[in-house]
Amino acid sequence: MQNYSKEETLDPQDWQAMRELGHRMVDDMMHYLQTIREQPVWQPLPAQVKEHFKQPLPLEPQGDERAYQDFLENVLPYPHGNIHPRYWGFVNGTGSALGMLSEMLAATVNPNVGGGDHSAVYVERQVLDWCKEMLGYSPQASGILVSGGSMANLMGLAIARNTQTDFDVRNEGVRAAPGLMTVYCSSETHSSAQKAVELLGLGRKALRQVPVDRDYRLDLAGLKKMLAADRAAGHLPFCIVGNAGTVNTGAIDPLDALADICRRENLWFHVDGAFGALAYLAPESRGLLAGMERADSLAFDLHKWMYLPYEAGCLLVKNKAAHEKAFAVVPTYLAPHERGLMAGPPWFANYGVQLSRGFRALKIWLAFKACGIDKFRRLIHQNILQARYLAQLVQESPALELMAPAPLNIVCFRFTAKQLDEAGHNEVNRRILMELHERGIAVPTSTVLQGKYVLRAAITNHRSRREDFAVLARETTRIGEELLQQNKFLKNPHS
Amino acid sequence: MQNYSKEETLDPQDWQAMRELGHRMVDDMMHYLQTIREQPVWQPLPAQVKEHFKQPLPLEPQGDERAYQDFLENVLPYPHGNIHPRYWGFVNGTGSALGMLSEMLAATVNPNVGGGDHSAVYVERQVLDWCKEMLGYSPQASGILVSGGSMANLMGLAIARNTQTDFDVRNEGVRAAPGLMTVYCSSETHSSAQKAVELLGLGRKALRQVPVDRDYRLDLAGLKKMLAADRAAGHLPFCIVGNAGTVNTGAIDPLDALADICRRENLWFHVDGAFGALAYLAPESRGLLAGMERADSLAFDLHKWMYLPYEAGCLLVKNKAAHEKAFAVVPTYLAPHERGLMAGPPWFANYGVQLSRGFRALKIWLAFKACGIDKFRRLIHQNILQARYLAQLVQESPALELMAPAPLNIVCFRFTAKQLDEAGHNEVNRRILMELHERGIAVPTSTVLQGKYVLRAAITNHRSRREDFAVLARETTRIGEELLQQNKFLKNPHS
Repeated sequence: MQNYSKEETLDPQDWQAMRELGHRMVDDMMHYLQTIREQPVWQPLPAQVKEHFKQPLPLEPQGDERAYQDFLENVLPYPHGNIHPRYWGFVNGTGSALGMLSEMLAATVNPNVGGGDHSAVYVERQVLDWCKEMLGYSPQASGILVSGGSMANLMGLAIARNTQTDFDVRNEGVRAAPGLMTVYCSSETHSSAQKAVELLGLGRKALRQVPVDRDYRLDLAGLKKMLAADRAAGHLPFCIVGNAGTVNTGAIDPLDALADICRRENLWFHVDGAFGALAYLAPESRGLLAGMERADSLAFDLHKWMYLPYEAGCLLVKNKAAHEKAFAVVPTYLAPHERGLMAGPPWFANYGVQLSRGFRALKIWLAFKACGIDKFRRLIHQNILQARYLAQLVQESPALELMAPAPLNIVCFRFTAKQLDEAGHNEVNRRILMELHERGIAVPTSTVLQGKYVLRAAITNHRSRREDFAVLARETTRIGEELLQQNKFLKNPHS
Repeated sequence: MQNYSKEETLDPQDWQAMRELGHRMVDDMMHYLQTIREQPVWQPLPAQVKEHFKQPLPLEPQGDERAYQDFLENVLPYPHGNIHPRYWGFVNGTGSALGMLSEMLAATVNPNVGGGDHSAVYVERQVLDWCKEMLGYSPQASGILVSGGSMANLMGLAIARNTQTDFDVRNEGVRAAPGLMTVYCSSETHSSAQKAVELLGLGRKALRQVPVDRDYRLDLAGLKKMLAADRAAGHLPFCIVGNAGTVNTGAIDPLDALADICRRENLWFHVDGAFGALAYLAPESRGLLAGMERADSLAFDLHKWMYLPYEAGCLLVKNKAAHEKAFAVVPTYLAPHERGLMAGPPWFANYGVQLSRGFRALKIWLAFKACGIDKFRRLIHQNILQARYLAQLVQESPALELMAPAPLNIVCFRFTAKQLDEAGHNEVNRRILMELHERGIAVPTSTVLQGKYVLRAAITNHRSRREDFAVLARETTRIGEELLQQNKFLKNPHS
């Protein structure tokens, strides 16, 4: 047998050196955050840096210091950019200094929050109670922290699927349904709804995409027509997905009317509020979300508009029994005991897909306590006002065009010039976007609205100031004019 | 409009104070890890601590210092226990000092690793290449980091489901299959396989549980019989799940033979190697896993037997096209560009369920570089030798009984005495487990084998030493004898 005097560990041989490395990291990271405004929002990785990430498996130790040095040289300078004050791409949160330290604490305790009787479980329960309270959701509701909105939407639809039938879907599968089980949502709904119905075995064709009105909100008359036609055809409508903030424009579906339809038609009402649900915190915007609190399940992300580090999504479910019934499995090796680690509240593992679960709750708990919810109310409202400010700048500029209503925190716009046709508009704006990124000026991203390529700023950033949006408007115009002067985007260039 | 001079941020007003708090946290956490051996493995939360986690939503700020103080008082003293050298519960990894610091770095950069052109994407690709290399898996394979084994198993089965049919499952749903689509695994397979077939809409009855032999390995003759019967009945077998280490006993299914059957019968071969796959790193144990490298998809966790902090699971998929085909959706707002942030390698979001994805890869990249893989080889082998040592202690003790073969790192045993009948054995061992926890001595957990309650030590702990297993064996015996002296577990107590 092995010579046990040689037993080894991953613990540092020199704790003091590790402590000092930790201090240096804290200093470096704080400096990085403190001076982020002076950095480019984004910059391309040089070819040799990309090449650097093609090393063979390291067999020998390089040591903590050298590994960290490699991080400083090859990882830190080429970030996604979402920590920067002029980043408004996709819908990505910003993180924070406290969030960064919280993740260190969580990884020290490093609990498996699948279940058992230990503090992390109570922290997560506390956080879920707070989430219900801050969103005006039923205090009796169930909930769970998940990786993000995609998972929360998948789980909401899974619970709907498993609940809205009179046979045991979990055992029998969807084959046992006497017809096609259909889900309804607007054509502006996030792609995660499609992924969910596909994964759940319902098929993409079960997802009925209802047309939207000119404000990109689900058209109720269209929905009713589809529902009636599907029922007449023998299909089995079981769920409506409402948007509390679409990803393209921030449009909010008529949630209250959708809740009425769900009640009347005995359908599950799921709300995808990935970022938009958080607008409920700003009293000035709360009215836009009327009806959200009636959702049977509500998905939202704290790593988006609560500015917390990845990953922190959440699903709330009004009917706790339905939530548990959809997922619970208790294998013998997890059997609850009356005392010890294997006691404690109901296992989170019985309310979701994951069995091993990290301590996502800690950063939320610390942030809510340290900052207070009123701080988040103000920041969210500030972002909404900043969106209005950007929309106003766009509308005031002859070279810019607002491309959709901006009811929340998303502004879709484009550079425009009279000599550009539609194809020219699309191409010049695409190039403007890439130039904004490559020059490190700002990171909006893009989408397509009614066939038109548009620049899109989604503002979930606590570091942005009004001046940053002025930069975006000004530089978009400047780069657009620069590109026009290169004469590449004229109508009928050969005429 | 708002008075913009009042624009605020989550950034600290006093960076120096935040830096000092960070230093204090590093010192506290390092001290905590350095002295963890002196702490109880687990202790119950007092009633007032549980009560403390029932506060109303904090509206006003308490400040970073006070929030941290609350963490020190109410969270840190009541951990799950898996960071302690005498924790061998469920299958939970230990974390490490470097891992803890890595999570701080990851949360600073805070990228969304769903896709785009930034360093985190390349770090994850590098880590996936290393994972393939270290497990002897095809370098051309695809892969993705996920929350853990449950998600990796779900995704493996989803790809199998979407690949092994001649119709478009994603569009049509599983209803379109001309028969019941069936999956095969041993009766010892992890509950996540059940959860997966349920979620995928196949139904639990589609999961065929094959009996095991006396070593808890899938019985090949039983499997062949089931396959033949299902084909004869018009069902559609499409996948076999092999275990590289079952959760109950660490049994390894005959993977090579399963791969042969899959090839012959045109079935997808998925291997659940949640922890056991990592035994491949120890050259002495590699032979046990022969055939694993032939899996079409392979699930394993780096937060288990690679001792990394939660969450770090991984799925490798031999056929990259099948992997992408199962999940890819590209909505207009994510359309790739040639340059800028929206350029870069294929999006990870197209290879899984999540769109927003955290920077799980960093802690793996830093650990592999800093420690070198040879270190992990030795630690994994050390754990296997420790399991053999514990098994030997059990076999040498008249008061202890080994309850299953221990081929890997899991030892199932129980306290035994001649005056105990089966019910008495079950009950005294259940009480021993709760006492071991409550006294803070050690945390094994339990399972049930052939109707018998057993204590179960799953050794994925870099802090454990041989002396710790001696404590477990000794204290199990001592507590068992103590309980027996209370005369509660005699056969026929009324006779």
